[in-house]
Amino acid sequence: MDSFADLGFARVDTSREARQGAPEAIVAEGKTPAEISAIAQALLDAEASSVLVTRADAAARAALREVAPDAQEDERARLAWVARNVPAPEGVVAIVSGGTSDLPVVREAQVRAELLGTEVLVHVDAGVAGLHRLEPALPDLKRAHCVIVVAGWDAALASVVGGIVAAPVIAVPTSTGYGATFGGVSALLAMLTSCAAGVAVVNIDDGFGAGTIAARIARQSK
Amino acid sequence: MDSFADLGFARVDTSREARQGAPEAIVAEGKTPAEISAIAQALLDAEASSVLVTRADAAARAALREVAPDAQEDERARLAWVARNVPAPEGVVAIVSGGTSDLPVVREAQVRAELLGTEVLVHVDAGVAGLHRLEPALPDLKRAHCVIVVAGWDAALASVVGGIVAAPVIAVPTSTGYGATFGGVSALLAMLTSCAAGVAVVNIDDGFGAGTIAARIARQSK
Amino acid sequence: MDSFADLGFARVDTSREARQGAPEAIVAEGKTPAEISAIAQALLDAEASSVLVTRADAAARAALREVAPDAQEDERARLAWVARNVPAPEGVVAIVSGGTSDLPVVREAQVRAELLGTEVLVHVDAGVAGLHRLEPALPDLKRAHCVIVVAGWDAALASVVGGIVAAPVIAVPTSTGYGATFGGVSALLAMLTSCAAGVAVVNIDDGFGAGTIAARIARQSK
Amino acid sequence: MDSFADLGFARVDTSREARQGAPEAIVAEGKTPAEISAIAQALLDAEASSVLVTRADAAARAALREVAPDAQEDERARLAWVARNVPAPEGVVAIVSGGTSDLPVVREAQVRAELLGTEVLVHVDAGVAGLHRLEPALPDLKRAHCVIVVAGWDAALASVVGGIVAAPVIAVPTSTGYGATFGGVSALLAMLTSCAAGVAVVNIDDGFGAGTIAARIARQSK
Amino acid sequence: MDSFADLGFARVDTSREARQGAPEAIVAEGKTPAEISAIAQALLDAEASSVLVTRADAAARAALREVAPDAQEDERARLAWVARNVPAPEGVVAIVSGGTSDLPVVREAQVRAELLGTEVLVHVDAGVAGLHRLEPALPDLKRAHCVIVVAGWDAALASVVGGIVAAPVIAVPTSTGYGATFGGVSALLAMLTSCAAGVAVVNIDDGFGAGTIAARIARQSK
Amino acid sequence: MDSFADLGFARVDTSREARQGAPEAIVAEGKTPAEISAIAQALLDAEASSVLVTRADAAARAALREVAPDAQEDERARLAWVARNVPAPEGVVAIVSGGTSDLPVVREAQVRAELLGTEVLVHVDAGVAGLHRLEPALPDLKRAHCVIVVAGWDAALASVVGGIVAAPVIAVPTSTGYGATFGGVSALLAMLTSCAAGVAVVNIDDGFGAGTIAARIARQSK
Amino acid sequence: MDSFADLGFARVDTSREARQGAPEAIVAEGKTPAEISAIAQALLDAEASSVLVTRADAAARAALREVAPDAQEDERARLAWVARNVPAPEGVVAIVSGGTSDLPVVREAQVRAELLGTEVLVHVDAGVAGLHRLEPALPDLKRAHCVIVVAGWDAALASVVGGIVAAPVIAVPTSTGYGATFGGVSALLAMLTSCAAGVAVVNIDDGFGAGTIAARIARQSK
Amino acid sequence: MDSFADLGFARVDTSREARQGAPEAIVAEGKTPAEISAIAQALLDAEASSVLVTRADAAARAALREVAPDAQEDERARLAWVARNVPAPEGVVAIVSGGTSDLPVVREAQVRAELLGTEVLVHVDAGVAGLHRLEPALPDLKRAHCVIVVAGWDAALASVVGGIVAAPVIAVPTSTGYGATFGGVSALLAMLTSCAAGVAVVNIDDGFGAGTIAARIARQSK
Repeated sequence: MDSFADLGFARVDTSREARQGAPEAIVAEGKTPAEISAIAQALLDAEASSVLVTRADAAARAALREVAPDAQEDERARLAWVARNVPAPEGVVAIVSGGTSDLPVVREAQVRAELLGTEVLVHVDAGVAGLHRLEPALPDLKRAHCVIVVAGWDAALASVVGGIVAAPVIAVPTSTGYGATFGGVSALLAMLTSCAAGVAVVNIDDGFGAGTIAARIARQSK
Repeated sequence: MDSFADLGFARVDTSREARQGAPEAIVAEGKTPAEISAIAQALLDAEASSVLVTRADAAARAALREVAPDAQEDERARLAWVARNVPAPEGVVAIVSGGTSDLPVVREAQVRAELLGTEVLVHVDAGVAGLHRLEPALPDLKRAHCVIVVAGWDAALASVVGGIVAAPVIAVPTSTGYGATFGGVSALLAMLTSCAAGVAVVNIDDGFGAGTIAARIARQSK
Repeated sequence: MDSFADLGFARVDTSREARQGAPEAIVAEGKTPAEISAIAQALLDAEASSVLVTRADAAARAALREVAPDAQEDERARLAWVARNVPAPEGVVAIVSGGTSDLPVVREAQVRAELLGTEVLVHVDAGVAGLHRLEPALPDLKRAHCVIVVAGWDAALASVVGGIVAAPVIAVPTSTGYGATFGGVSALLAMLTSCAAGVAVVNIDDGFGAGTIAARIARQSK
Repeated sequence: MDSFADLGFARVDTSREARQGAPEAIVAEGKTPAEISAIAQALLDAEASSVLVTRADAAARAALREVAPDAQEDERARLAWVARNVPAPEGVVAIVSGGTSDLPVVREAQVRAELLGTEVLVHVDAGVAGLHRLEPALPDLKRAHCVIVVAGWDAALASVVGGIVAAPVIAVPTSTGYGATFGGVSALLAMLTSCAAGVAVVNIDDGFGAGTIAARIARQSK
Repeated sequence: MDSFADLGFARVDTSREARQGAPEAIVAEGKTPAEISAIAQALLDAEASSVLVTRADAAARAALREVAPDAQEDERARLAWVARNVPAPEGVVAIVSGGTSDLPVVREAQVRAELLGTEVLVHVDAGVAGLHRLEPALPDLKRAHCVIVVAGWDAALASVVGGIVAAPVIAVPTSTGYGATFGGVSALLAMLTSCAAGVAVVNIDDGFGAGTIAARIARQSK
Repeated sequence: MDSFADLGFARVDTSREARQGAPEAIVAEGKTPAEISAIAQALLDAEASSVLVTRADAAARAALREVAPDAQEDERARLAWVARNVPAPEGVVAIVSGGTSDLPVVREAQVRAELLGTEVLVHVDAGVAGLHRLEPALPDLKRAHCVIVVAGWDAALASVVGGIVAAPVIAVPTSTGYGATFGGVSALLAMLTSCAAGVAVVNIDDGFGAGTIAARIARQSK
Repeated sequence: MDSFADLGFARVDTSREARQGAPEAIVAEGKTPAEISAIAQALLDAEASSVLVTRADAAARAALREVAPDAQEDERARLAWVARNVPAPEGVVAIVSGGTSDLPVVREAQVRAELLGTEVLVHVDAGVAGLHRLEPALPDLKRAHCVIVVAGWDAALASVVGGIVAAPVIAVPTSTGYGATFGGVSALLAMLTSCAAGVAVVNIDDGFGAGTIAARIARQSK
Repeated sequence: MDSFADLGFARVDTSREARQGAPEAIVAEGKTPAEISAIAQALLDAEASSVLVTRADAAARAALREVAPDAQEDERARLAWVARNVPAPEGVVAIVSGGTSDLPVVREAQVRAELLGTEVLVHVDAGVAGLHRLEPALPDLKRAHCVIVVAGWDAALASVVGGIVAAPVIAVPTSTGYGATFGGVSALLAMLTSCAAGVAVVNIDDGFGAGTIAARIARQSK
């Protein structure tokens, strides 16, 4: 039976984890610290396996610590989270990024996937400008049940990886770069039109969404 | 006979309320505090039933209090207003929003509709990701003469509500979110192409416009 | 209790009229004539008050006549419809258009609003380039419970009408024109950003949607 | 060891199936019938489990029959294919579409997923304008290892389904509709910014891509 | 004979006034104060009739005063200028704006046109939402040799004026507003597609360009 | 006193010429031949100095001949017109185009300007790729009271001419070219952002608009 | 001394070859066959080393044969050309394409570069979805003085090649594909934002432009 | 044999210079100072001929000095670099810009091209609004093996130069300007659609990319 906690300014979906296997998370932007604390408390009260706050500035991260002193955080990735009953890992997710600047998005995907109970393998800065840098990652890419490719600019890495691995590929365009990158639009379009089949795409900078679907795929894999 | 007050930098439409049933309001952005005070004074001199300042920072809100000590304000929604001869409420407007971050726009619509003389019922954070959260709002939605849906991201709530209620639906896209939300464009396009008939759309974040047309619809309803 | 007729290729929402006061209609584009006939038959079997086929070429219009010999049609507006139990008119809708080329969209709005049971008053080609042409329409515009403005190009008529009438205004951008009209985008944007409050907008060329919401507004008016 | 067949005008990737578990397919647009025949022959020579020609007009479909008399076709979906050694089905893919006009894309996804060896369950026309039409599909949606949502217009169905099921969701925007649908762009943006987590998106009208990734997910599931 | 002053970082077109009747002006953005001073000095050395610095913050305005103590400025319009040999006024330019927020652009057009030697008549805040406010401006609009319309949002004023006056109309879209105004794009498109013939358009917020062409038109008029 | 002829499907602005010095013209697209004939007849009945039908296919051009046997036409420019009381030429308009493909737009501007009573001088194919081809046009460009530049692609000719002449320049972007010309958008943007001051722009392919404003400027010049 | 042939409808730049080393070519679209014949004749009269007609349908190609019976043509690439005094080849250009559908653009680049006097090496269908197909091209890519990459969709091939070769890379986006390829825009953006340095881009489908600059680079190389 | 230095957060492509003749550079945006220092150290350890940090604020520039006390910098161009084994200059690159505001991009191209071992000749502010300012640059433009044109706004300079010189032209759009310059998009489109053949384009503001390809062209020239 679906339920929610009505806080007036928010209706916290306390049954989401039971329904869909992953708890509601909190996008900090547009919410006050007090609202973040209250939503986090409601999720904890409902025994969420984890609470994750994304796009969180210092005040937003402190708001989580307020109600969960055991909270962890990653300043650069603008994340705060608390892990209470994370399921034992099942399945393997590999994340590979095109450049160093993609790190915050890589981290967001990694933390989410780990909180949902998967093993996560990370390879940063393996972009196409020097393709030999991808080679050391190949064993992990081939071992994974789902591969997340995080890339900005022309996002060519998504197609290269998509032409190699047999696992489903989730592509995350990032807003790195300048000029005709248009805040990630070029990467988004390139990933959507990848010449490699078997690639699906999430929103620009949406490491959270990639981590969510990748964990779902990995956990249900043989 | 139409008239206006000529302040040099502004021609205040003092006959708008008589002509169209709703007084001119003041968008604060692009105006100096002194200009805001003077326009507000001109409206009060013309016996406007209310004066509403939108998109108002602290200085703009103070500018209204300068000429109307009884002014009220809402910081988060960037509103200031003074109610002098608000008509007795006729008709019912229901407002439902997709998320907590839509609150400022919800408030703008609510204040405007109330100042024009309608009863307003509000339900926040009933988005489609957990559709059961919409259920408690259904009686109010069905009772209303006009339903305002405020939503960002994919704005799917507009279509869900538009597929349920018999009242006209006014949809307000919001600029919440990041990446491919493109400052509310995705929500705007989704609302314009809603698969539910009977939905009309106002500008991104335009709670004021939604409150205006909703009040007109509600007040003239049986 | 909600129901539908399952045709395999379509799930006809036979309870929509009971639920929302307006029967489902059929967009012909993307459907075969056989599918159109079958959907129309299902609606007629469910005693829909009317069946309306929009964006219908000759074959699509014939498909309606196949199951409803009493069907009417408008070739230029690409419409076919059959009226069986249209409710007695309540409320008044006025439609005003900017130019002659907007006629097909005007007709689509008119037919839909009439089928839903409203009186419809039409004024064509009253655009802003010669504003005196709007004057004869003013009494009808002021009498209406809802005004539909249909305009392409710069759609300035929406703001002019929106600055005059006290009734809610539904604006329909049209895809007339060339060059920077961009298939109706310029009109759409102008209507969304109308300097007149109380204007809400539907999809480009969407006379059907405008007729639907206008009829809902008009029928519930005093 | 990777290999290809060099036809001069094409380098057919004959090792793709061994490498990635799915044979190369042929997009007919931009290729002559003779080229299509030759590429298909090269794939058959390399013992591809299936050959699929997409976006194929009559001449393109005939080109496949030329080299594979046992080819099947679907005119409306512009598909031709021949199944030679399709693997025994493993895993379940459910496809649900918003409207009847989405049928060609639904079929493309279905044929591809079946050719890659999965069971496919299809529900057409379950869009949000009448949400009760989705109910009969729920058992299939919950049983599937991967759910494909095919929708045009505002694509709200993707979020509704994405808020219900626990399986990964692959969303396919379609180019149905007119006006501000912008050839599928509105649906694409709405799906990318879905308020439901766990949704990933493929190119507009890309049933092929959705079928490919969905089959990969389903076949590796427990 | 064309000439220029080579400053290394700039080649000041000192023959432009002789060639085209209007001296080069200085866009401050992207230039250092020292560069602005030097360019201004070069123009003064070449006996420019005026020097105008646009889009000038406080430092840029001070840079002009550095070399021309008789410089004037308008902070809100971000202008600084010095008039040395302004020609005696010939011809009349009328400027009319839609709202108060358009004032900076109005001023930029006014100052430029006056510096080039025309009489300028200004009417602010005569937008279409209250069309009666335009009436007092009509005698000036009809007297002018060129009318400049400055408007943001839907820019409907351009078409209304363009449908009334016999003089050429130069339309300046402004970046006022929010949401679907898209920084002036909606106004730009509406002006380009004006249903009134005889309207030509300059860049968004480009009061300078409008003032230049308007002065050229007015000065050569009978 | 403003008047119009009400034809039901059109309100012909018969007082436009008296009010603004140029008669209403007829855009053929979106109108039936019968409508075109009737509108033309109404204009002739009102003693318009000329009737011009633009964007006219063969049927539309025939529709004008139907009511005006003395009509002339230009098939490539899709024009038909009849000149009855064209005023004696006053002022000079020069038109210069970038390429041969711009000819239809050049002709539309030329015919309109001549019908409004100006002398028109034409130079075709003087684009920037071979700038020496512009030289023979310079005397005419310098003699004109208004210069129209018609160009597609990058439209660099507008800036080159705008940097030479002292007369006002009206720029017309054309939809010639392919790829990133985007149907004239690149030319439009380049013209709007011309580095030469004193350039104003009309809609893509809008020779009619350019001819109208140019004639107004030229006729009122000394 | 620069010269041109004035044909009235065209000013043929007969000195371009002497000035810039490459004769003017003829884009057929927007020109009549008679115009194409006349321009070609003027170029031949001026002893152009070659005449190339691009984007030429059957009539346009026949128009060249009319004046040059020795003309050659390529129907699929919509080309016709005549070679009269093509310089002896100097330098090497390599062209590599992503797919078979890019063939027409490949051919346009090849013919232009050969007519300007270079050796051209071609490799078709070496896209990233099966990267091993690029290997046989590597010796030619490394031998070339300039590499042209022709690709549609996500154009990832440009970055892969750009990360390998030491020669300058000219990238040509093509309009192949559907959906979010947006007629080549996605490929264009990906190429402009290539993570490999040393890549420059020409217009969508502009094989002609790529061939021109590549030949210039190759011919001046050691 | 290709190699890289694995720093965890970055895989520095230490073999790029051997492979492609130009060392990897560092885009500072999105990287911490510590990461910049470490990457620079890795490049120096690998005996890169130079290390260049672009888009570098003060902290990023200091990060280079940390590991290379002999580093130079250009604050306005946001550059820091260290030259260790720059090859002896071969070939000549000429850079010409439209305006003073383009200086930072000019400098970025210049520094990169010089670090790769070419002679660079610079002409600033030679835009089309006063074309005679280009004349003094012509000898250098004609002497160069590659010409870089840096321009914002309408970027008409690219076509003017492209119509004069015989060398390959690399065009760099800049994000200078306001309004419809759209952050460099107008310049980008104009350059891509240049009416002059032989022009290729790099990303907006990408002086680095232009310098790279220009140096490659110049160094391999006779």
